[in-house]
Amino acid sequence: MPELRKDPILGRWVIIATERSKRPNDYRSTMPAPAAEHRLCPFCPGNEGKTPPEIMAYRKDNSKPNTPGWHVRVVPNRFPALRIEGGINREGEGIYDKMNAIGAHEVIIETPDHKQTLSTMTNSQVEEVLWSYRDRVLDLKKDKRFRFILLFKNHGEAAGASLDHAHSQLIALPIVPRNVIDEIRGAREYYENKERCIFCDIVRQELSSQVRLVSENDHFICITPYAARFPFETWILPKKHDSHFEDSQKYEFESLSRILVETLKRQGKALNNPPYNFLIHSSPFNHNYHDEDYYHWHLEIMPRLTNVAGFERGTGFYINPTPPEEAAKFLREMEIDP
Amino acid sequence: MPELRKDPILGRWVIIATERSKRPNDYRSTMPAPAAEHRLCPFCPGNEGKTPPEIMAYRKDNSKPNTPGWHVRVVPNRFPALRIEGGINREGEGIYDKMNAIGAHEVIIETPDHKQTLSTMTNSQVEEVLWSYRDRVLDLKKDKRFRFILLFKNHGEAAGASLDHAHSQLIALPIVPRNVIDEIRGAREYYENKERCIFCDIVRQELSSQVRLVSENDHFICITPYAARFPFETWILPKKHDSHFEDSQKYEFESLSRILVETLKRQGKALNNPPYNFLIHSSPFNHNYHDEDYYHWHLEIMPRLTNVAGFERGTGFYINPTPPEEAAKFLREMEIDP
Repeated sequence: MPELRKDPILGRWVIIATERSKRPNDYRSTMPAPAAEHRLCPFCPGNEGKTPPEIMAYRKDNSKPNTPGWHVRVVPNRFPALRIEGGINREGEGIYDKMNAIGAHEVIIETPDHKQTLSTMTNSQVEEVLWSYRDRVLDLKKDKRFRFILLFKNHGEAAGASLDHAHSQLIALPIVPRNVIDEIRGAREYYENKERCIFCDIVRQELSSQVRLVSENDHFICITPYAARFPFETWILPKKHDSHFEDSQKYEFESLSRILVETLKRQGKALNNPPYNFLIHSSPFNHNYHDEDYYHWHLEIMPRLTNVAGFERGTGFYINPTPPEEAAKFLREMEIDP
Repeated sequence: MPELRKDPILGRWVIIATERSKRPNDYRSTMPAPAAEHRLCPFCPGNEGKTPPEIMAYRKDNSKPNTPGWHVRVVPNRFPALRIEGGINREGEGIYDKMNAIGAHEVIIETPDHKQTLSTMTNSQVEEVLWSYRDRVLDLKKDKRFRFILLFKNHGEAAGASLDHAHSQLIALPIVPRNVIDEIRGAREYYENKERCIFCDIVRQELSSQVRLVSENDHFICITPYAARFPFETWILPKKHDSHFEDSQKYEFESLSRILVETLKRQGKALNNPPYNFLIHSSPFNHNYHDEDYYHWHLEIMPRLTNVAGFERGTGFYINPTPPEEAAKFLREMEIDP
């Protein structure tokens, strides 16, 4: 069973793989080349047997599970960082603390077409991917062991993707991770002070100043954040206050799919299809934060253009060589196909 | 003037390069190949004119500044993330906060020999590098604008090094960075609770259990930390409680140089000379923490074997595929030349 271990100084949790752990030689070997051929790709139709049995799939043709005919397919990660079975089992080890790394680790295969990506798919295909995110979150929320779900995407080998067929991932955790606790704490302090959501204030200031605005549509804005950690980092936020991604309405998912595809197209054209990560920060559940009033879900997109080095590791401080105002201008002025 | 900007939600500071900022095309170009030829390397003897004028150098032969004859040489970074001149100038921008990115960014050239690295240099050469760290910290501490200095090293292109001639770096900051504040806070809470230094307790537990002990000598231990973020991450800690690196005595620097060289040799042999970062966490200065009793300086070494991806970015959580007990065993059992 993998372990969750707590750093005794920082309180930071780390997932330690105790089974099938990697030995020095495993790191020496080069990364496996992404399977370019469809017949080898475990995410291509016809190869459903190369993944664990599917958790859910959207199928228009009444085809059977684990056969072709799907357009979005969700499967357990074959090499999960956490295990779905078992109890949490909190334990001490001298001055240290650990628990079993219980959780879910799933893969959302975004399209059956090996050659498509989120930026080449139609808005309605991308909207279906967003619906699959929602369906999985609603299902996993029923499991009272879990307190937070991260939806994220690694696109390109340099961003951590081990397969190039378009996919996102989901990890459900028994604890609320540090970054989210810190965001919630910051938003709560602001709310206690001003009785306003800080994210709503950001949306207002960015719409008014326009300098970091990349685009907006009926329900969302895309901005480069004021203190962006990475060059060309963008955030997509709902204009209307909403703490939980999964509570979004049909018209919101439609609007979100449009701005997401558009942003990825702008980024792809400006930066020559860079590797990137995106992730959704949404309110935890089964918890005591009562953060509906002050937490505001959002999606963060981080192209991988620079290398995090010793300074960032040592300080938690980032050096961003492109001011977000310039990045926003570049992205805003990109001519993209509608 | 580059800016320090504060993330309004997290309170996290970011350095934004506002001058000579990088445009999209700057990221498209591939990294410049490290200068393999001595005549092109700005850190090789004879090329002193290719760096800004030296801040200090250790010379045995009474040679003149900025000429050959040195064995350790410290110069300003040619592309500094922060500027040494000017005032801090705190300012608001709507709901956002910023200040001038005042600070020092220096490069410590560890050897005149282009082919040497810390793991091939003699202990006494490495000890001189440590003395140069101390001398720079003591000098920069006099500048009352600074509150923290990070000493760090990026070794290898994948770890962020842009030149392969052996060098470390130093950044002096006008604020105490988040990671260090978090460590100090955690250590203070432990001290308030138990009236013991948590790092001293870690040293005691690791010496007693031995499972994560890589090596020890008269004044230092090298361990793999219990909640290691990265595979084969190691920490070197002084056995005797000490909050400030720069207060170490001659016999301690001698002992530290031995364990550092030995650890880098073990790591290089086990992992086939991986790229790595190391950094020194030491107590801030010109501040109000009074942390001499509970903060304990240490050196963290992180080989770059895995890729940080969307999950880590989104949660602040790390997934470590090698348990620290196994990593310690591998490193401990490596046969290295004395």
